[in-house]
This record gives sequence, structure tokens and C-alpha cells, in this order.
Amino acid sequence: MTDTPAPEIPRSSYATALERSEALEKRIATDPSGLRVLTGDRPTGALHIGHYFGTLRNRVRLQDLGVETWIIVADYQVITDRDVIGDIKGSVRELLTDYLAVGIDPSRTTIFTHSAVPALNQLMLPFLSLVTQPELERNPTVKSELAAAGKSAMGGLLLTYPVHQAADILFCHGNVVPVGKDQLPHVEQTRVIARRFNERYGHGEHYFAEPDALLSEAPTILGLDGDKMSKSRGNAIMLRMSEAETAKLVKRAKTDSDRTITFDPEGRPEVANLLTLTALATDRTPEEVAAEIGDRGAGTLKVMCAEALNAHLAPIRARRAELEKDPGHLFSVLRAGNERANAIADDTLAHVREVMGMVY
Amino acid sequence: MTDTPAPEIPRSSYATALERSEALEKRIATDPSGLRVLTGDRPTGALHIGHYFGTLRNRVRLQDLGVETWIIVADYQVITDRDVIGDIKGSVRELLTDYLAVGIDPSRTTIFTHSAVPALNQLMLPFLSLVTQPELERNPTVKSELAAAGKSAMGGLLLTYPVHQAADILFCHGNVVPVGKDQLPHVEQTRVIARRFNERYGHGEHYFAEPDALLSEAPTILGLDGDKMSKSRGNAIMLRMSEAETAKLVKRAKTDSDRTITFDPEGRPEVANLLTLTALATDRTPEEVAAEIGDRGAGTLKVMCAEALNAHLAPIRARRAELEKDPGHLFSVLRAGNERANAIADDTLAHVREVMGMVY
Repeated sequence: MTDTPAPEIPRSSYATALERSEALEKRIATDPSGLRVLTGDRPTGALHIGHYFGTLRNRVRLQDLGVETWIIVADYQVITDRDVIGDIKGSVRELLTDYLAVGIDPSRTTIFTHSAVPALNQLMLPFLSLVTQPELERNPTVKSELAAAGKSAMGGLLLTYPVHQAADILFCHGNVVPVGKDQLPHVEQTRVIARRFNERYGHGEHYFAEPDALLSEAPTILGLDGDKMSKSRGNAIMLRMSEAETAKLVKRAKTDSDRTITFDPEGRPEVANLLTLTALATDRTPEEVAAEIGDRGAGTLKVMCAEALNAHLAPIRARRAELEKDPGHLFSVLRAGNERANAIADDTLAHVREVMGMVY
Repeated sequence: MTDTPAPEIPRSSYATALERSEALEKRIATDPSGLRVLTGDRPTGALHIGHYFGTLRNRVRLQDLGVETWIIVADYQVITDRDVIGDIKGSVRELLTDYLAVGIDPSRTTIFTHSAVPALNQLMLPFLSLVTQPELERNPTVKSELAAAGKSAMGGLLLTYPVHQAADILFCHGNVVPVGKDQLPHVEQTRVIARRFNERYGHGEHYFAEPDALLSEAPTILGLDGDKMSKSRGNAIMLRMSEAETAKLVKRAKTDSDRTITFDPEGRPEVANLLTLTALATDRTPEEVAAEIGDRGAGTLKVMCAEALNAHLAPIRARRAELEKDPGHLFSVLRAGNERANAIADDTLAHVREVMGMVY
């Protein structure tokens, strides 16, 4: 909780958010006490290296820098854009396995599910009263999610899930939300809800801190066909794959016939993507990797990329194989996280009810 | 819970709802077992005789016929159409006092609040996924409530509260919802949500019964100025008023100068209203009351009306005065109701989570 008054400057611009994000990174590097990260995923299946290099690795970095981290497994949000929920328990198990395999440490990081924390979900009600339908409709991320889902009518849960996300962030007083640019509208919506709640019920107190986006400089990672990486497209290297499967997929990756390898994301996106992956896995720049390959062509690039990924992922995959043997342990980690989440959600809801006068 | 398949005939028409409501009244009169009423109020202050003759008396009738009854004090719904929540604890206390004074018996009827039943509120999430934004927008009752609130933008909670109301009805397996015609769209929305939930997650089972509206033949009761009766308009006789206050208000009521009293709701709405009130309080028809007064004019009508109301309300007011002395008792009634509501809400949510596969 902070006591900072609502800022004077307009906060909606990307530039402002970026500025605050950079200041936040500095604070994280020097003194992360008082910071609490809220982040999470929808449990729709096992994760791939796009998730890994895009978000998971950053979460482990923050955790290891000593930033208290809360990860929500957003199970209700699976049905924002689809009618069939599928094997959600299996998806949750895969997610837990990936989390722990990449280095999320449940003794330092709390992993929990929406469906198991009623007091968090109850916050939807007061929070919904603090936003208008036009505000909900304006959210560009929700709009593009509707388009991507290929549905004609906006679902009630899709329309309102940014309010649910505000509850995710505010129930545990999260003040750092690692996001890409596309998720910024949700963080802004949460800031607005926090501000209006404080104004309306705070009696001068700023109970809910307005969270800041931590804008990741995540590299653009494409699928092996140059399209968006996605398990359902068959163009993704999953964390759980074997070395042979990985090598086979990389070998089939789309490239071009120019034997001189250069890093040119605009002109040669597929080649650039393999360079990026190799670079990320070996802690170099894509240009360095390209220079090393020179005119030995895409075949060499592919062999190098597969080897680099397999070497980088080897310890993760070894842990993953161990973790898979004991799903009971994985779910006990989740239950412990749910317990911690319920404790803080109950406290927050009790305070919210108190300042609203709803204690009878 | 019933096992009735979704009906073939279109259910949205008033005629169909009325037909089912009449069948329901017959069942209530003969064998009310298996029926459960869900009804309630927003706690916005003490109740007046419009509430009493319009809904409260009917609730007591149903309770006394042996229909299990659940009454929700819809505290979160106070902020659907206003920004200031006010002294909500005071409003809840007034409501409880009125309920018990008119004859709601907490040993047979469960009185509970939204804010104290998290598992009920959590049902909002799966239920929101079962409706579309166009369906929410089409609700004529919500539209007219927005107009009445005098706001330009629809609030998020106002837009979605019919889904919250579906949770109120379905969490306790309410299958009888006493409503006026204007609330019928909400019952229809609940039926749709129950049906879709069963289709999507029921595995052939109809877990949620589709509730029926019990359409009241409530008399039209106006304020003493001929406008809608409302505490804030100063045209309402409150249950808690004294006999003198009641007589004074009735004496000031708007009438006309025709000394011959006739029951003509279209042509003489204010006179008709006083006749209706007198009739309701003395268990006669308005025509009988009019015939008795004949050409003795509005003055006589007013005296008769005030006396009839005061006589009818005397035992209620006596109980009310007793109840007011012990607010601790009133709130203990609410706490006991909340406990019962939580028990059944926890069960319902557990089942919902189970059929959705959200048990980890």
C-alpha cells in the first residue's frame, strides 16, 4: 500500500507508462521491498518457448531479485472466449509443471487459482460499479480478443474480465504488473478502479495503490512457420518436448534460400526468429549468432538453434520430468497458494466491506 | 431441483409466464413442498405501505402457506444506479425491522445479504460467460432503471446485475420468484442462464431448475400526490410512522372536488388510490368502500382511509416498536440467515466447480 496521491499528469499514454516502468526497474534493482508482482496465465495447456522467453524467464528473474510474486492461474478466464472448457485440471497441471520446472519457487512465489478464492471474486461487484459500459467497450485488447475468437457477440465475461483482473491485482495489493504493450489497457483500467474506490470509500486514505505496468522488453518470437507461435498451429516448441522433437521441428522451420545468414527481422523474419531463439538460449545477440554462421546457410543455423535450445532447456526439462512423476505434489503447491491467497483476499474483502459500511 | 427438460414453446411472452404462474399458485395451494421462493429488496431505507401491500404481504402469505422462502438483502445492488452508498447498515436495520414486523418469521424464512455470501457472488463469473453483451443490453428493465437514475452512461454493475440476480436465484435453487411484470425479463434471463449451464456442464443432468415467475396481482398503489410512492418524494406512508403522522399525510392527500366518491382509476386516480388503500386495509373491494361513502366527499374518504390504515398497521407497528429496541437481535437474525445462505452457496459452488472440472 502506498499513500501517493493520484498523479496530475495524464497516465494513459504509452510513453508515461514506459517512463514509470523504467523507474520501477531501477527500484527493483536496488530495493525491491514493498513491491509485489501480480501476474498469471489462463490454463489452456502446456507452455512453449514463446511463453518461456516472453514472460516466464522474467518472472523467475523478478522472484530471484527478491520481488514478492503472486501468480494467478486464471481458470475462469478460459471461458471468456470459448464455450468448451476442456480438461482444465490437466491444463492447470501442465501449467504448474512448467512453472516449477523453469524455476518458480513456491516457497517465495504464491501460485493460486481464481475458482478457489471466493473473496477475490466478490470484489468484482463493487468494482463493476466503478466502471461504465462505454469504458468496458472501449478496451482495445478486449476488442481484439473478440475478433480473434471469431465470435459475433461479445460475451459478458469477456466484456468484464478487465474488472476481474483489477480484482486479481488489487486483492493482494499487487503494485507491479509485468505486461506487454497490448495488456496496458487492463493495467490502466485497474488504476482507474483503484483511484475511484479510494475517492469514493477511502475517507482520505489510499487503500488501493495504483499498480504500475512493468513493460517487458520481450523479444518477438514467432512460430517456426513465421506465424504466431501457438500449440494449436503445430509451430511451437513446447517446454515439455524431447530433444529429438525439438530438433525435428526446428529442422522443418521455414527459412529462405539465401545462404548468407543476416539478422533482418523485417526482410527475413523467419531467419531472424531462429537467430533470436539461438541468441536467447546462449545469451548472445542475434547479430553475433549471424556473424558466426556467415554463409553456411539455414541448415547450419537450424542445427545451431536446435542445439542451443536443447542445451538451454535441458535442466528445465530434467526438472519437468521429475515433477511430472508427482502430480500430487504439484496440486499441493497450488492448494498451499490458494490458502495464502484466501487469507489475504479475506482480509481485503473485510476491509472493503468495512469502508463501504457493509458490516452488520 | 426438477428434472424437467427445457420446454418447446417460446417462454418469453407474458401470456406464457402468466399461465405458468397460475399453475404455480394452484400447486402452492395444494402442495408447496419442493418449492422455494427467492425474493428480496435493495436496502435503501425503511419500507412504506406500497411495499407492504405490493410485496411484503404476499411473502408472508407464501411463508404461511408453507413455501420455503429466502429473502435477499441486495446490498451491492444499492450501488447499481448511485455513487453514494449512504448509511447502508441503517438501511439494512430498517429493512430487517420491517420484515419481522410484518410477519416474516426467521425460523421459517432465511434473510441474508449479498456481501456476506462470497460463494454466491462467485457464481457471477461462470454465469457471465453464459450471456452476451447484446442480451444484457436488451433488458428493458435495466434500460428503464438507467433512465430513472438520470445517468448518461450505463454502469458496469447496472448492466450485469440481472446475472447477479440469476446467481441469487440459482445458488439456493429457488424455483419461485414473485415479481411484477416489469421484473419478468430478469426471471427470463435467469431461465436462460440455468438452461445454458445445464446444457454446457450438466452432462445430461438438469442441475439448475429454471425458475418460474409468480406474477403478483398487486394493486397499483400511488403516492398521496398521485405520483409514484417514494420516501424521497414525501408522498409515502411508511410502516414505521405513527398514527398521527399517517392521519396527517392522508389528510393532505391530493383528491378532487366531486363529493360523490366513485372508483375510477383512470379518471380519478388519486381518489381511486385512497379507496384502494382503504379496501386493502379492510379486506373489501374499492367499489364497496366507495358505495359506503357515497356523496360524503373526499374528507370522509380520508378519515376512513387513515383509520383503516392505522387499524390494519397497529399490530405491525407495535411489533416494530418492540423490534427497534433490540437491533442486536435483528442483526443476529441476519447473521443466522447468512450462515444458512453460506452453507448452501458453498455446496452449490462446489458442485459448479466440480462439473466445470475446477477441482484441483
